[in-house]
Order: sequence, then C-alpha cells, then structure tokens
Amino acid sequence: MVDALGRLVGDRLHVGEAMRLEHGRSETHFAPMLPDAVVFAETTEEVAAVVRLCAEYRVPVIPFGAGSSVEGNTLAVHGGVSLDLSRMTRIVAVNTEDFDCTVEAGVRREELNEHLRDQGLFFPIDPGANATIGGMASTRASGTNAVRYGTMREAVLSLTVVTADGKVIRTSRRARKSSAGYDLTRLFVGSEGTLGIITEVTVRLHAIPESIQAATCSFETIGGAVDTVVQSIQLGIPLARVEILDDMQIRAVNRWSKLDLPELTTLFFEFHGSERYVAEQIETVSALAAENGGGEFRWASRTEERNALWKARHEAYYAAVNLRPGAIGWATDVCVPISRLAECIGETKRDLAASTIPATILGHVGDGNFHVVFSIDPDNPAELAEVKDINARMVRRALAMDGTCTGEHGIGLGKQDWLVEELGDAVGLMRSIKRALDPANILNPGKVFAF
Amino acid sequence: MVDALGRLVGDRLHVGEAMRLEHGRSETHFAPMLPDAVVFAETTEEVAAVVRLCAEYRVPVIPFGAGSSVEGNTLAVHGGVSLDLSRMTRIVAVNTEDFDCTVEAGVRREELNEHLRDQGLFFPIDPGANATIGGMASTRASGTNAVRYGTMREAVLSLTVVTADGKVIRTSRRARKSSAGYDLTRLFVGSEGTLGIITEVTVRLHAIPESIQAATCSFETIGGAVDTVVQSIQLGIPLARVEILDDMQIRAVNRWSKLDLPELTTLFFEFHGSERYVAEQIETVSALAAENGGGEFRWASRTEERNALWKARHEAYYAAVNLRPGAIGWATDVCVPISRLAECIGETKRDLAASTIPATILGHVGDGNFHVVFSIDPDNPAELAEVKDINARMVRRALAMDGTCTGEHGIGLGKQDWLVEELGDAVGLMRSIKRALDPANILNPGKVFAF
Repeated sequence: MVDALGRLVGDRLHVGEAMRLEHGRSETHFAPMLPDAVVFAETTEEVAAVVRLCAEYRVPVIPFGAGSSVEGNTLAVHGGVSLDLSRMTRIVAVNTEDFDCTVEAGVRREELNEHLRDQGLFFPIDPGANATIGGMASTRASGTNAVRYGTMREAVLSLTVVTADGKVIRTSRRARKSSAGYDLTRLFVGSEGTLGIITEVTVRLHAIPESIQAATCSFETIGGAVDTVVQSIQLGIPLARVEILDDMQIRAVNRWSKLDLPELTTLFFEFHGSERYVAEQIETVSALAAENGGGEFRWASRTEERNALWKARHEAYYAAVNLRPGAIGWATDVCVPISRLAECIGETKRDLAASTIPATILGHVGDGNFHVVFSIDPDNPAELAEVKDINARMVRRALAMDGTCTGEHGIGLGKQDWLVEELGDAVGLMRSIKRALDPANILNPGKVFAF
Repeated sequence: MVDALGRLVGDRLHVGEAMRLEHGRSETHFAPMLPDAVVFAETTEEVAAVVRLCAEYRVPVIPFGAGSSVEGNTLAVHGGVSLDLSRMTRIVAVNTEDFDCTVEAGVRREELNEHLRDQGLFFPIDPGANATIGGMASTRASGTNAVRYGTMREAVLSLTVVTADGKVIRTSRRARKSSAGYDLTRLFVGSEGTLGIITEVTVRLHAIPESIQAATCSFETIGGAVDTVVQSIQLGIPLARVEILDDMQIRAVNRWSKLDLPELTTLFFEFHGSERYVAEQIETVSALAAENGGGEFRWASRTEERNALWKARHEAYYAAVNLRPGAIGWATDVCVPISRLAECIGETKRDLAASTIPATILGHVGDGNFHVVFSIDPDNPAELAEVKDINARMVRRALAMDGTCTGEHGIGLGKQDWLVEELGDAVGLMRSIKRALDPANILNPGKVFAF
C-alpha cells in the first residue's frame, strides 16, 4: 500500500514521525492520534487516485486542510492516510458579474480575500482561524459575519467531491438556485469528510460595501447587550457583525492584544452599506444600546484601527488559553434560539464562576451562538473532568432550550454522544446515508459517529 | 388494505372517482394518473400510521398539499394512496423574538402571512400560487422574493418528517445555525416526498419593513433590464423583488388583469427598508435604469395599487395560458448564472418567435431564473411535440451556460432525463440515498428518477 502510494505521489508521501504528528494532533485538548502516512495531493484526480487505492486496501483516508478544527475532526482514530489538500491553492475562476468564484479546497480565506479585493468583492465567512475553504465547507463553519451573510451552508453554491469509490462528481451547477434533485451540496457541507472529499468549492461573494464602520460598546448586563441586538434585528438593521465578549474574555484580549477596553460585557459591532445607510444604522443601534444600559460607542474609524480590533477578536482563543502559562485550550460551542441566549450565557457564567479553571465566553450573538474557552492544565486529570462536567451542563442547557450541541465546530470526536441526545432517531438516518455512500467506512472513520 | 385504512381514518378515506381525479391531475399538461385512494390526514401520528400501513402492504404513498406543482410532482404514477395534508393547518408556535414559527405542512403561505401580520412579521417565500408550506419545502420553492430573502433552502430551519418505516423524526433543533451532523433539513427540502413525508415545518420569518415601495419600469432591450439588476446588486442594493416580464407576458397580463402597461420588456421592482433607505435605493436604481434604456418608473405607492400589481404578477401563469381560449398550460423553468441571463432569454425568445404557439417569458431576474409558459391545444400532438423540442433547446442552452434544468419547479416527472444530463454521476449518489432511506420505494415512487 505504501509502495503504491509512493508510486502515485512520489516525494509527496511522508511517513516520518514529525509529519505524522503534525497531522495527528489537534488545536485543543484531544490526545494525538497519528495517521500511518501523510500525502500532499495536488489535483482532484490525484485525490481520486489516492481514495481508490485506500478503497482497494480498505485503509482510512482523512482529508486535512489547515488543521484548525477544534473537535478532533482530523485526528486519525483508526490510522490510515492523512490526505493534505493545503497545496491545492488554485483559484480556478472568479465570476465578478455572478458574484461567485471557484477555488481548490486548500485555498485559505485570507488569501482568497486578498485575491478578490481589487475586484471589489469579498468572501464573508470568517471563523477566526485562517482556515481552508474546503475545511470550512466540511465543518459547516461560520463565524463573525454569519448574522448578515450566513454560514457555509448559505455560501457554498457547488462542490467537486471525490466519492468513497474514487469517482469525481460535481454536486450542482453554478446557478444561484436550483430544484434539480436532492441537495447534495448541503449534504456534503458539514459532513466532516465522512461522505466524500471536497476538492473544489464554488462560493458566493459579496460586493465590498462603500462604507464599513466598527465600534465596541460595554454593557452593565449580558441581558442588555443581547436585547440591543434582538431589537436591532427586529427593526431590520442588517448588522454585519455583532460579537459578544464577557468580562473575562475582555481581560484576556486586553492582555494579549494590548488593548484597554473596560473589563465588562462588550459588543463588537460592524456596519456595512452606503455612507448614508451606515450612518442611519449607527444612529438606531446606538440609541437602542443606550436604552439597554450600554456605554458610549468606541469607534474604530480608520482601517488600521478596525483591523486591530478584529485581529484582537480573532486571537481571542489564544488570548483565553494564555490566561495561564503552559495551559492548553478546551473549546466548546452551543447555539440556542436568540430569545434564550441571555439566560443560557448567564447560567453558563454562573458555572464558570464556581470553577477554579480560567474560562472565557465569546459569541456570535446575532445567531444565538457562543463559545467557552477553558485554559486547562493538561497534566491535571481533575481539571479535565471538571471541564467535561461544565461542558455537559452547558450542552444539556442548550438542548433544553431547543438549541444545538454545536453551532459551528462540528461533531468530530467530542460531541458524538450529544448528537444522539440532540436528534435521536434522526441520527439513524445519518448512519444509513453514511453506509450508503461509504459502505467500507474508509472516509474519516470514527467521526460524527463511531459507526 | 383499504379496510385497514378505513379503520385508521374513518370517513377521511375516499375511493370515489372525483376525489381520486382531483388528486391525480396536474395544473399543467401531464395526463391524469389516479391514486387508488385518497386519505386526509389530521396529525403527524396519523401520517406515520398510514405510512406504516403502506410499508406493510408495499403500496405507494404520495404526499399532497395544494396540488399547485407544475412538473407532475403529485401524480400517482404507480397508483397507491394520495395522502392529503391540506387539513393539517395548525400554526404550532410563533416565536416573535426568534423570528421563526412552526406550522403544520398544510398551512398555506397567504394564511400564514395573514396570521403573522399583527405581530409585525412575515414569511417571505412567494412562488405565486397559494401553496402549502409543506409542498413548498418539498419542491424547494422560491419565487419573487428570493433575490433578497432566499428560497425554501434558506427559509426552513427544521422539519418534522415521517420516514419510510413510519418513524417520526425532527431534522434539527430551532437554533438558527448548527454544525451537528449531516444537514437532513436540506436533504428533505426539495426531495419531493421521495425520502420522507414532511408534516411540520419551522421557518425563518422577517420583520415587516417600515417602508415598502413597488414600481414597474419598461426597457428597450432585455439586456438593458438585466444590466440594471446586475449593477444594482453590484452596488449592494438589497432589491426585495425584481421580476422580468417580456412583451408577450405584459400583453397577457394587461388583458387578464386589466392593466395598461406598455407592451415592452418590463421589470417589476419592490424595495424594503426604512423610509430613508428605501428612498436611497430608489434613487440609485432609477438612475441605473435610465442609463440602461429604461423608461420612467411607474409607482404603485398605495397598498391597494401594490397589491394589484403583485396580484397581476401572480396571475401571470393564468394570463399566459388564457392567451388562447380552451388552451392548457405547459410551464418550464431554468436558472443560469446571471451573467448569462440576457443571452439565455434572448435566444429562447428567438425560438418562441419562430413558433406559432403563444408563449410568454417571466422570471426572477435577480436569481437568473426564468419561466416560459406555453398556451397549448391539448388535442394537438404536433403542438406538444413542438413545445417539447423548444423546452429541450432551452434546457440544453441553460446547461451549456452552467445553469440548471429547473430553478424552482422540481424534477417531478418532467425533468428526469435533464437531471441526469445536468449532474451525471451525482444522480447515482441520489439514488443510493433514496435506496437507503426508502428501500421498498413506497414514497412518491417514480418521481425525481424512475428508480
């Protein structure tokens, strides 16, 4: 098998420990699980050839992008081949008039936006990490812009996918909508590499707005912050970004990114539109914030200030982990109907206050989605047990509010039991689909469900 | 079997010819195909019981809503039970703060909006016909508002579905986004009743905007009309509705709805937002229209005028069919990347001009989606053959432009060969999913693919 792989890809096959570790470790608390080999693919045809070989030998194949997932989504539970697509970085086509582009799976979102800037377009999905577009599709990622621009579910128009038997399919044409058959595009989005390997992605783009304004605003209470957002949405304000950071997260961000924000619950806003329309949005939202106990808006008017602000937001995970020297991160997320968000965050915060483990809350408040990042001592099993318990309480709370056990991180290894608790018999249908499309269970086996 | 059904639903079982014909005929040119029985279900549990009975006897079961689909989607190709959900009209919950509601599958969109109006909310998806929400989900319907508010793909948050073995599942929780497992919601949306029977739907709602303005504008050329829309989108104008009607369609609408629009290619616009923002949108778009050979905007400022305008648009199908007395309709639709729309409509129009059969073009220009409605003599096989040929040329043209064989009508009976031409091997995956979820092929058999 290794010889056959070598004949296929030459020196882009790696079996050394270091490379295998790089592909078998996680950004978070999961113990490393190494693949037997790492292959860097360069074309869709090559991915198909590797999959055919893995199918022949019944060897697992795990697609790998930036490795920035946080639920152990790329770990090699059953060994096999980690198929690294990060060198597939071709921008295949940008169709400016159609507001879409097609890229290879290994293109990263920052590089894509760099490429698009001169054409007045941007790709809005922003999970924080500079993830690959293929990985973002696989995880059904979203992030700070989802309240206005949707998630990868809405952003992906079409996919090129290598199936478990090594065929290459395209899930849909490039039309903006279609009623032609089952929605395979959405089936592969969020399937975490367990149904097929995404090699090319066509995504929707948006025009860079004439005006972009960003600001922060501190609140006396979580409820006041959440109410400001709910009321803004009720008035039809198209908030482009609205992030909530709790006092602990602000403390962490102030330290890590050298900011001086008041250490209170804070909203980070961004407004997009024409000059006049942005001014109108700001007028309405700042009035609502004032009524809900919000302080003054602190504006990041210049592009550099705005970039610094969002850079701080993007580094919030590292800022939180580094609240303790030598600590590692445990990241979790849930998503609830927005009417329950203040309550859900409030109760979670009480759990965190009763714990000795440093932890922060940050979230995409317009979506009802928030994260907790624990800064844990990896050598202390008591801490791991405590975090597991707090996480369980948080997920159960979200489910009781008709929420989901993960808004954007995926199931991976960490949320498999919760998936069953959340959807019951529906998980049986998911398994049927998995068995139908990957009967030998070679595609990222052991993820989403143990099989 | 019939006895057992009778014991289940009593006098809500019908086997008379008239009722079977009502459920075995189509709005369009398809010949009637009658079910053996019609059952009116009143609850999800009852739907599940009927499906279990049908599974036991291996009898087809075809979900039926308003019967307004146009590709023969509800015809009883292999007989069986037509399961009518139109009496399941309970509005289960409206969550105003979360901008969502849950309704039974038989609720119609106009009744839903009636119910929501007092709460300042509306459900935007509008395919023209007063379809049921369940049917709209099954067909992945869209219509006039999709350019701004998306299609049923984006609108549906969660579904209650009866599976082929008579289990009841919920496809997701009510959170606005989730990465928890495969996207079953999107898999059932657009599956035309072939994978499960949708009995409840949770949909996203929107705040009724402060200001709504509608207008029509005539253009010298199709290209001028399309360019106006593309340029508006490029400037970030959130057009709420933008419909294109060709000269023939305007003639039909003028006659049918007693209007006096100039018989030229015409755009129907609607703008949503605050007073100030709508004024700004109109200023920009009317300037663009003027640059692209558009005439004056004719405003429908009062609510009654606006309603009359959209009523005329909604009756466009009947207006087109009635261009000839005694004629029946043949409706088809395609969707292409918007950069190819003017060309696609232009070439299609040349085909129509060369034909003796009256036909109109109307479309959702912001999505790249348009319809042709032929007014045919049902007793003239030569006309049917000619329409079939023009339709084939239109679909092939759309596919050659990387478009789809149907933007919003579904595959049903009419587009099965085109689905294969469009997606090739991907259709094999769809069949695998169908076999996995409905191994006995009892759910709306013969639709999407012949099996």
